Amino acid sequence: MAEGSTTRIAAWVEGLKLGDLSQSTREAAVKSFINYVGCTLGGISHEATEKALAAHGALQSSSGPCSLLGSLRGLDPLQAALVHALACHIHDYDDTHLSTVIHPTAAVASALLAYAEAAFDHPSALSGADFIVALTAGIEIECLLGVAVYPSHYDRGWHITASVGSIGAALAVGKAMKLSKEHLVNAIGIASTQVNGMRIHFGSHSKPLGVGLAARAGLESAYLAQAGMTAAPNSLEGPRGWIECVCPDPQSAYEKLPRFVEALYSGKGIDGDGKTETEKNTFKPYPCGIVIHPIIDGCSQLRNEGVKAEEVQSIELTVHPLVLELTGKKNPVDGLQAKFSVYFGAASGLLFGKATPAEYSDEIVQQTAELRSKISATIDKSMRRDECKILVQTKSGTHQKHVEHAVGSLAKPMSDDQFRQKFVDQVEPQIGLDSTERLYSSLGKILEADNVMDVVYAANIK
Amino acid sequence: MAEGSTTRIAAWVEGLKLGDLSQSTREAAVKSFINYVGCTLGGISHEATEKALAAHGALQSSSGPCSLLGSLRGLDPLQAALVHALACHIHDYDDTHLSTVIHPTAAVASALLAYAEAAFDHPSALSGADFIVALTAGIEIECLLGVAVYPSHYDRGWHITASVGSIGAALAVGKAMKLSKEHLVNAIGIASTQVNGMRIHFGSHSKPLGVGLAARAGLESAYLAQAGMTAAPNSLEGPRGWIECVCPDPQSAYEKLPRFVEALYSGKGIDGDGKTETEKNTFKPYPCGIVIHPIIDGCSQLRNEGVKAEEVQSIELTVHPLVLELTGKKNPVDGLQAKFSVYFGAASGLLFGKATPAEYSDEIVQQTAELRSKISATIDKSMRRDECKILVQTKSGTHQKHVEHAVGSLAKPMSDDQFRQKFVDQVEPQIGLDSTERLYSSLGKILEADNVMDVVYAANIK
Repeated sequence: MAEGSTTRIAAWVEGLKLGDLSQSTREAAVKSFINYVGCTLGGISHEATEKALAAHGALQSSSGPCSLLGSLRGLDPLQAALVHALACHIHDYDDTHLSTVIHPTAAVASALLAYAEAAFDHPSALSGADFIVALTAGIEIECLLGVAVYPSHYDRGWHITASVGSIGAALAVGKAMKLSKEHLVNAIGIASTQVNGMRIHFGSHSKPLGVGLAARAGLESAYLAQAGMTAAPNSLEGPRGWIECVCPDPQSAYEKLPRFVEALYSGKGIDGDGKTETEKNTFKPYPCGIVIHPIIDGCSQLRNEGVKAEEVQSIELTVHPLVLELTGKKNPVDGLQAKFSVYFGAASGLLFGKATPAEYSDEIVQQTAELRSKISATIDKSMRRDECKILVQTKSGTHQKHVEHAVGSLAKPMSDDQFRQKFVDQVEPQIGLDSTERLYSSLGKILEADNVMDVVYAANIK
Repeated sequence: MAEGSTTRIAAWVEGLKLGDLSQSTREAAVKSFINYVGCTLGGISHEATEKALAAHGALQSSSGPCSLLGSLRGLDPLQAALVHALACHIHDYDDTHLSTVIHPTAAVASALLAYAEAAFDHPSALSGADFIVALTAGIEIECLLGVAVYPSHYDRGWHITASVGSIGAALAVGKAMKLSKEHLVNAIGIASTQVNGMRIHFGSHSKPLGVGLAARAGLESAYLAQAGMTAAPNSLEGPRGWIECVCPDPQSAYEKLPRFVEALYSGKGIDGDGKTETEKNTFKPYPCGIVIHPIIDGCSQLRNEGVKAEEVQSIELTVHPLVLELTGKKNPVDGLQAKFSVYFGAASGLLFGKATPAEYSDEIVQQTAELRSKISATIDKSMRRDECKILVQTKSGTHQKHVEHAVGSLAKPMSDDQFRQKFVDQVEPQIGLDSTERLYSSLGKILEADNVMDVVYAANIK
């Protein structure tokens, strides 16, 4: 019998070496990790992070080997993985794999970082290069599985970032542990049998919590597999396995999965363009659902061109259908809900010319109510996701804007300066400017580090 | 807007009192807990339990407030909940809610026990009566949700014991914590967004592991909700929520759920017979899939009537369709796989007149290969699940057996002596006969205990 997809994936992960990764993939992986560290420190003091830490404080002793990023608090690795992934995703500011709307790094890097810190002074300590190879392995498989089950899996209600994140995280940690193919098969099985994250929770703490749970599940799955826990050898593709459980349209996934797995081996890429999924990762300029970004861009541009919010009579937005499905909240009551409101995004762009974490405060969200009441939105199926049209009526006349590609899209990525500034904006309030700059510079040289934690610990010198 | 099912469930749990439970329900809950303690101690030394502990030993410090049943090892509550539920289910010997094939107590009691032990010397220490009320609340809701999504949820591949167990466990712990309705709504949301357990893993360690993960998820969800983590207010019934994600046939569940919830309030019961689901819980005489039990009964009876295994030419089994779907493994290679083999069950009954944990050893499974090769099985849709027909051809002639109700079914429960002996068989090897008898007697008086842990600690005096 030919090997199934679960086994083929495990074998690919087992064999992956730094030399297999193109320069472009390495750079994308490093950038993904830098953006991860920035977003995680940006969310580390959020009330949801603090509540999760409080609950765990009542449940677990705080004498583990892991630090909370930015501090020296002793967490055990399971806690650290959960809390870091939650923090990374809480502002909806982390990275995006556009074709699936997966935020790929939060779960994978959090699990891997917890493992790396636990192994810090062991003979098995991870080099920066080992870390980046493991991170890439996790992101590749996570996104591959995501594309295989997309869109029916996501349409049905699963939060795909969490639901595939656990499997990517398990493989990243398993790779770092140097697990055999057989053990990686068990790690996939253990991770894939725990599915979490549902879209009904968007706008509540349970959205980022799901990503935290995925990180922890992945980390733990690798440890359980290493200890010899067994699972079905065909957990992804077998009868009554992962695909059937999580996919209302399993036939499509059954067809795609083995084809994508072979594209890993051939290097042709899922899309046939020779690119890895890691290379297709993108970074957000705004801390909200990515589909709102062209609207924020366009409204910010209109403001810069002289349109005044106080003179607005009406605003009509024309958008991709997913925009209203994901971010159609007309009357957000706080900053968290505002992340799912294209109406708030438009108002923030027109009022402030931006939408950074500072604008997503509960007070500012309430101040935008009047302007939001003048905004309507219409779907146009011919639009790309990173495209929109905006029509503003003011006392003085009509103003139009057509945004072809939002900033942060693959076609129009953030500049190096914008990318760096995003990092500084998030990290500086936590650890001060000096440490922030040292950390940013240190992370940029991660591939040369003998021990990856030497790089990360730059964050913990306050 | 009328309150949704999620809120109605939370309100019912919040309000439940001991006085609301009939004598029969109280007795069933106590019996469920006694059987739980027996099965958990019976699985506490299994290699899967030890591997899970080993993995957690590498991940977490061992200085928590919880003991492993039968010892004084210090686990944190999350570990304790996971490991106990895994141990309870590892031999497939725990209880069964027949209409859904849910094993209801493992996840709920493990989470609750971990909470009770963490609260042991706090002002919030749980009385035995509080414990039984919380346990019943968890089992009722777990089974109610199970019936609502059965059979499509189970048919698709979810291991229903784990997938609904986490929600029952969250509510049991939330009840014990005296959470408000609003916090219980969040606990339901947090627990229901983590679904785990797939049938493809039957026959591997990941089957009982899923139940362990459900217990931990439930425990943690209650703590997270207590700490103020939020979730969707309509997580079960809302769009892109639990039912849509886990149910390939959501319409049926949407229709059943509110009806069942109202039956909770009216006391009419899900089936309209005025019984609680806890009262419908059953206890197994054999450590394997319950659908095999009539076959073991019948073959044991044939042996007692003089049929000799060495003279058998062929055996024909006629069974309910679920028997072959769940336990159709023709050639099990070890004791774990044998639990999913009706052929092994028949052979064990005929060879040994029983099928206790001792028969499910790898060696004995291999010794039955020749006899198993002579056994065939046929489906008859008109059979009940606890019914079967057996036709044996030997050199001396034909022998027939029609088992109308297996021992351990609702119609033919184990006797008090059988129930006690099952407990002793499992517990005595762990803590010796004296402690076993003291524990059994202590558990029987749980409703009178000021602190439930005083009852359970009888297990830890070796």
